[in-house]
Formats: sequence, C-alpha cells, structure tokens
Amino acid sequence: MSTTGPLRWGILGAGYIAGEFAKDFRFMQHAELVAVAASDIGRAKQFAAQYDIPHAYDYAQLYASPEVDAVYIATTHNFHAEQAAACLRSGKAVLCEKPITINLQEFQLLRNIARENNVFLMEAMWTWFLPALRQAKTWLQEGRIGKLKMIQADFSFAVEYKPQGRLFNRNLAGGSLLDIGIYPIAMATFLTDRYPSAIQSSASFTDTGVDERVGMLLEYGQCLGILSASIGTRMTNHLRIFGETGAIEIPEFWKARTATLFDKEYRQVEVFQDDRPSRGFIFEMQEANDRILSGHKESAVVPLERSLWLQQIMQEVRRQIGLRYPSEV
Amino acid sequence: MSTTGPLRWGILGAGYIAGEFAKDFRFMQHAELVAVAASDIGRAKQFAAQYDIPHAYDYAQLYASPEVDAVYIATTHNFHAEQAAACLRSGKAVLCEKPITINLQEFQLLRNIARENNVFLMEAMWTWFLPALRQAKTWLQEGRIGKLKMIQADFSFAVEYKPQGRLFNRNLAGGSLLDIGIYPIAMATFLTDRYPSAIQSSASFTDTGVDERVGMLLEYGQCLGILSASIGTRMTNHLRIFGETGAIEIPEFWKARTATLFDKEYRQVEVFQDDRPSRGFIFEMQEANDRILSGHKESAVVPLERSLWLQQIMQEVRRQIGLRYPSEV
Repeated sequence: MSTTGPLRWGILGAGYIAGEFAKDFRFMQHAELVAVAASDIGRAKQFAAQYDIPHAYDYAQLYASPEVDAVYIATTHNFHAEQAAACLRSGKAVLCEKPITINLQEFQLLRNIARENNVFLMEAMWTWFLPALRQAKTWLQEGRIGKLKMIQADFSFAVEYKPQGRLFNRNLAGGSLLDIGIYPIAMATFLTDRYPSAIQSSASFTDTGVDERVGMLLEYGQCLGILSASIGTRMTNHLRIFGETGAIEIPEFWKARTATLFDKEYRQVEVFQDDRPSRGFIFEMQEANDRILSGHKESAVVPLERSLWLQQIMQEVRRQIGLRYPSEV
Repeated sequence: MSTTGPLRWGILGAGYIAGEFAKDFRFMQHAELVAVAASDIGRAKQFAAQYDIPHAYDYAQLYASPEVDAVYIATTHNFHAEQAAACLRSGKAVLCEKPITINLQEFQLLRNIARENNVFLMEAMWTWFLPALRQAKTWLQEGRIGKLKMIQADFSFAVEYKPQGRLFNRNLAGGSLLDIGIYPIAMATFLTDRYPSAIQSSASFTDTGVDERVGMLLEYGQCLGILSASIGTRMTNHLRIFGETGAIEIPEFWKARTATLFDKEYRQVEVFQDDRPSRGFIFEMQEANDRILSGHKESAVVPLERSLWLQQIMQEVRRQIGLRYPSEV
C-alpha cells in the first residue's frame, strides 16, 4: 500500500457502532471507505447504500478482497478474535472494537498472529482520544490537582431485561463488564499509565448468568480507582478525578464533551469545552490510519501492551466474580 | 429520675463536637444541660461560661455527680469505651459520639456493662435522624426508585498533614476509617437494614501509620455499596442511591439539608428541602432523651445491634487493610 494514502478501509459488521464509524468517516484524511461486510449480504448492501460505500461483501469476500487495506471490526465481542485473525492473516490492518477479545488467551493469540504477519492491530479505545479526557490528563500532568488520589468512574444504564438480547446473552459474552465496565477500567489505566497493584471486585448476576453489575477497587499505590458498571440501574456516568489539591469532573465521560477543573475546596476553576463536529470516533480512526500509513504495527496511544492490561484486569475480575462464557467452559 | 423530665444532661469533653451539642440543646424538650466536664477543669469552666451551664467538672466529678442523669461523650474515640463505662457504672445514661468504640472487643465489653447496669447506651449516629435522609429512605420504601441496586457514598477532605494532629495520630485511633469512613458505612447500613454478605476494602497509609484513604465494596445481595473516605483529598461528599427505576442524590450527606429524587433517565422528579433551624444534632438528642425518660435501654433508631454491625464492618475492613492501633498490638 502507499505510504501517503489514501488507505482503503472496510467495515466488518453493519450494526449501530459500524454506523457511528461510517458517519465519522467524512472527517478522515488520507483514507477512503471502500467496503462493508455483514454475515447477511442484504444487510451489507443496505448499509453500503446508506453510507455510499462502493462494495458490499460477506465476511469471506472481505477477507479476500484486494480492494481493502484496513478493517474496522464492529461485531459483538465474541466474534472479534476470529474475525480480526482472519483479517490479519490476509494482510489487512485491523482496528477492532473494544473489548478487542473476550479473554486474555484470545488476546495473546491475536497479538501473536499480528506479529507473525507483521500487520497493524489496535483496539478501538476511542475515549482515550477525546479532547476533554486529554485535557484532564494534561491538567493532571501539569500538577493542577496535585498528586492523584482517587478515580471514581461509573458507567451504567437500566436496560429492559431481554434474555436473548445481546447484553444478557452469555453466548455473546454479554454482561456489564465487557460491554461497559471496560470504560471505567480504561479510564483508570489512561490516567495512571500503570497496571494496578491490586484488584478487588464484586458482582451480581442476571438470571441468564451474566454480570448485571460489577464493582471494582483498583489500587495504584496511593491512588485508588473506585469503578462500577451496571445494566440494571442508571448511575451518574461521570468520571471524577481527585487529587491532593483539586479535582476534575467529566460528565458522560465515555463520549465526553466537557471537563471541569475544581480547586481543593471544590470551587470551579476552569471549564474545557469540546465543540467537535464529529461523534468523537474520528480521533482514534485518524490515529489508526496515520500509524498504518507510516508503517507502524501498533498505535502509540493504544499499544497492544495497554490492551493486554485491560484484558488482564478483566480476566482477574472475572476470576474473582466467577464469570465464564460458554466458549471458555 | 422522673419519667417526664426534665432529664439532666452533662457533656463529657469540651471540644468542637461538644459545642455543636451545646448549641442544639436549646431545641431540647424535657431536658436540662447541667454540667460539662473536661480533663482540664479550666477548659470545662470556659465551656460552661460560654454555654451558660451550671456545673464545670473534671471527669471524676462528673461520674460521681448526683446532678447528672445522662452524659453525652464528645472526646476522641480512643477514650469512648473507658469513659462510657465509667458513666454507665455510675448509673448514668450514655449517648456516645461515633464511633462508639474503636473496635469490636471494646464495644462488646461496653454493651455488657450497659446491660449489667441496666442503663441506656446509644451511639450518636446523628445522620440517621436527618430529615433529608429519612425522606430518601421513605422514597426507597415507597418504591420510587425501584429495587435498590447501588449505594455510592464518599466522605473526605484534604487536611494539612500534621503528624501529631488528632486525625494522623495512631495513639488517638486516627485515620479516615473511624473518623469519617464510618459515615458511608452507616449510610449503607441505614438504607439496607442489613449486614453485608461480603466486604472488600483497600487503603493507603500516612507516614504516621493511619489510613489516609479507604475504599470499600459492601455487598448486599443484588445491591452494592461503593464507599470511600479520605483525609488526603476532597471528594464530592455526596450520597447517591441508585435503583432500578430511579436515583436519589444527597449532597453533603453527613449534614444533609436536601435530597433530590430522579427518574430512570436521571431527570429531576422531586426535591426535599430541610429548613431546620438546628444544626441537626437535636434529632438524635431528643430521641435519646425521650427513650431514657420512657425507661428504654436502647434507641429504636440506633439500637446496639446496629452499632455492633458498624463495629464488625470496621473491624473486618481493618483486618483486611492491616490497620491496628497501639492499644491493640
């Protein structure tokens, strides 16, 4: 492929998140959206028509297509490992929705495949690129809140209970941890740049045997991450960062548009506003695109080492709460 | 003593919290504030003059005084057990600041002494009486937020580090857990009326060896308490209660004046405002007073069983984080 682009992208999957990627594609530089694939070719064609994409494929056609340089994987997480592996083996760079795999073993296999084939692989951890979160990290690094002490993050919503729905289905690796719990964990990882020295967790389960709620304490020396996720109640969905001399709050941090800095008496000091015209996926998309074009095999912001940490943390949490998926039993 | 009053109260201790009690005393019915005692008689005299209290005693004089029916203990927690025991043995009813003792063993001894002497004993868990918190519990009981799912409470402030200060002094049973961590724990207890089925905790320590910060996960079946306390950073100090179909938020819950009810989309439904003229101690004070006058040996709202739970929870947390006080080693 050319080193200046345009890089030719395909989307694997045609659901909600695939649509978000397609909508943000108009902001991409040095890139073209050339294909979409779905298990149901009719659905791929419909998606292609909706977003004006030249090729509609089934999965096998996408893997084989010489028209596609890079693939964005947007299916449910239980399929990620297999589909990413197929793309990597056919020499296509991969940007894969989070969680990149459903467990550590899958991740390690996938990383090996990327290395053996010398192909780019990146987890689509889009929140790490959001300007409001980068501003929060800058404030932290500038010492605006002093030494980091506590990270409080919850991500949750009350979903109608549908035993066959994606979120409640064990076969699709449903539950709160993998789907949304990864966000608070990713926040603690993003802010500390460390692997926790200790992990404690607690969960309750749905009748279908997935984690309706998970609570976690992640220790980072003098700093503690107090994290939770739930598909059984709506919490505040804020990220709160507490330091010795101040605090930062980020409402709806998973799609953040603002960050507010407070002093030690909790008086507002500064507000950062992100007026981006995009949905916010473009930042990770452009990073992947540019890293691929410049010949790198990993992202600088979401290197595979960080995805490994996320998998290790979730694996340990699942061990503690006793959550296994059918494919693992 | 008379069963209609007035009940004659003495205060043991002449510090900040003793002053709060004295200030709220003007709202008390069937009661008289007749004495104050301090280790330094000069300090007792000064306090007595300030609040117009007839008698200023040293501790031994208070224990022996026939003028006093009931004692409010307002010293640092390391002294509570010994002082409360002395009062109970001299037949005086006791309302003792929280935590009532510094560990489970002390508490059990004290409870035995109260029972042997057939005297009233109550922990001064004033927050359980605050109208905003009672309103929250009423909303919960009325099903306004559906099944209880999560309780998020933090209580913290950033204190200047003074190794000899009360909060940092191991000899005074300093640290965050006993001083302020008991508040979030008390909230989870108040809202669930249960002892947790599992307890997990995490802490970091000051150079003086007390817990600067503590984080806790208390499990109550399908509900989880996510609690924290710190003397090294200021958090939001809110209590947030999340149910299947709504939420309740209580800012500064330890001295709450408002409670806000939200629906499942986090839209405000109702606001409760407490315009009390008192500082808020009067509710527990009046309860203690009236229960004593009516011949009861415990509070109906804060029975000794509940204080036992709080001690058991804190004991387990301390075991997990490895926190011992010199008197225990």
